[in-house]
Amino acid sequence: MTSGEAIRGHGGRRHPGRGRPAGGRRAGDSGTREAIGEAARAQFADFGYHGATIRGIAAAAGVDPALVHHYYGTKEALFAAAMRIPVVPSEVLTAALAGPAADGQDFGAHLVRTALTLWESDGIKETLLGLIRSAMTSDQAAVMLREFVSDSILSTVARVTGLDRQKSKAEAQYRTTMVATQMLGLALTRLVLGLPAVTEASIDELAATVGPSVDRYLRGNIDLPAELA
Amino acid sequence: MTSGEAIRGHGGRRHPGRGRPAGGRRAGDSGTREAIGEAARAQFADFGYHGATIRGIAAAAGVDPALVHHYYGTKEALFAAAMRIPVVPSEVLTAALAGPAADGQDFGAHLVRTALTLWESDGIKETLLGLIRSAMTSDQAAVMLREFVSDSILSTVARVTGLDRQKSKAEAQYRTTMVATQMLGLALTRLVLGLPAVTEASIDELAATVGPSVDRYLRGNIDLPAELA
Repeated sequence: MTSGEAIRGHGGRRHPGRGRPAGGRRAGDSGTREAIGEAARAQFADFGYHGATIRGIAAAAGVDPALVHHYYGTKEALFAAAMRIPVVPSEVLTAALAGPAADGQDFGAHLVRTALTLWESDGIKETLLGLIRSAMTSDQAAVMLREFVSDSILSTVARVTGLDRQKSKAEAQYRTTMVATQMLGLALTRLVLGLPAVTEASIDELAATVGPSVDRYLRGNIDLPAELA
Repeated sequence: MTSGEAIRGHGGRRHPGRGRPAGGRRAGDSGTREAIGEAARAQFADFGYHGATIRGIAAAAGVDPALVHHYYGTKEALFAAAMRIPVVPSEVLTAALAGPAADGQDFGAHLVRTALTLWESDGIKETLLGLIRSAMTSDQAAVMLREFVSDSILSTVARVTGLDRQKSKAEAQYRTTMVATQMLGLALTRLVLGLPAVTEASIDELAATVGPSVDRYLRGNIDLPAELA
């Protein structure tokens, strides 16, 4: 059973028939899926990734919340679909990183390789750049992207590396955020600025150079801020 | 004598009266300085940082090249003024980093502290974000920013650290570019996304955590791309 199926059944049982306005759309209506996607884009933009809810999105689209789960699965999957990200980031990261994290060897290099490969695959690069571009021009979009990165990406890295069990929540967040500072800079210099040294190197070469920095942030003996030390 | 004064005299001697179109503006005309700035913005955007020349900018503004040197000094200083960067980056970096580079202690931490302090000072943050935003929406603007970062920022870091004398040009470029991947990601996560762990930490705390990564890229035993190894 996929996580989508799990949530779908769960959502259906939990809110049987609730939240569907009179005369609202029903399962199978053409355009329902699209209407939910439109409502999701608007609600995520207005309320951020934390603030937007499946129930609120359902209400805005005029459908039952169970239908949102039916079409899209989790909130993260709905966000990804609404933002036209062709994968669910936490699922891809978990699948790609669980093995290397378990054996602890060259995890940082593997993370760099996974991220760069993903970013340069069809449809992802444009979406990633679009999200960053929006964040640079709109405070609301920045909030949305910040919350999504924290909830979906950083918490997945904390989970697959075991940081979420071995360290305090604040330290796990600090360490994974330091990884984000390195990885997003790699995206910016490779995909946007096109600095020659970073575009001419292969993904494996960059992974070999940058990987140890990622490992140091995740597991190394780093200086932590006073509140965390 | 400042570098601006040096260039000013030099430019004046080298091109005495050349390049001034009939009826063009002359020194002291009101608006001349502004006209040069406008011409510079357009030429840098059209031809990139490498391609734009003092002579071409002078011609576009209808003035003698010596006048461009007189008002603005070096090409880098003209670029900074045209982009409304209130400092000349290579001068600030050289002044801030020459001492720490010479004694080799905690250079990375010092570089992080210098950059973050600079970015958060008046007028710089908006300009930096404006340049990155332009690079994300225009290939031409990306070329201009890429060339400026390479010529002005990375080559200054290579010079003050001695990398330009101790390593091949390609290796110095690779190492300083790796520093750029870390530093620009710090800018993106702190100034744009506002990831809590990185906005709540002080500049000194971030310098202590990130500095060793910068030192590793500059002087550490890193895996280099095959062409450089």
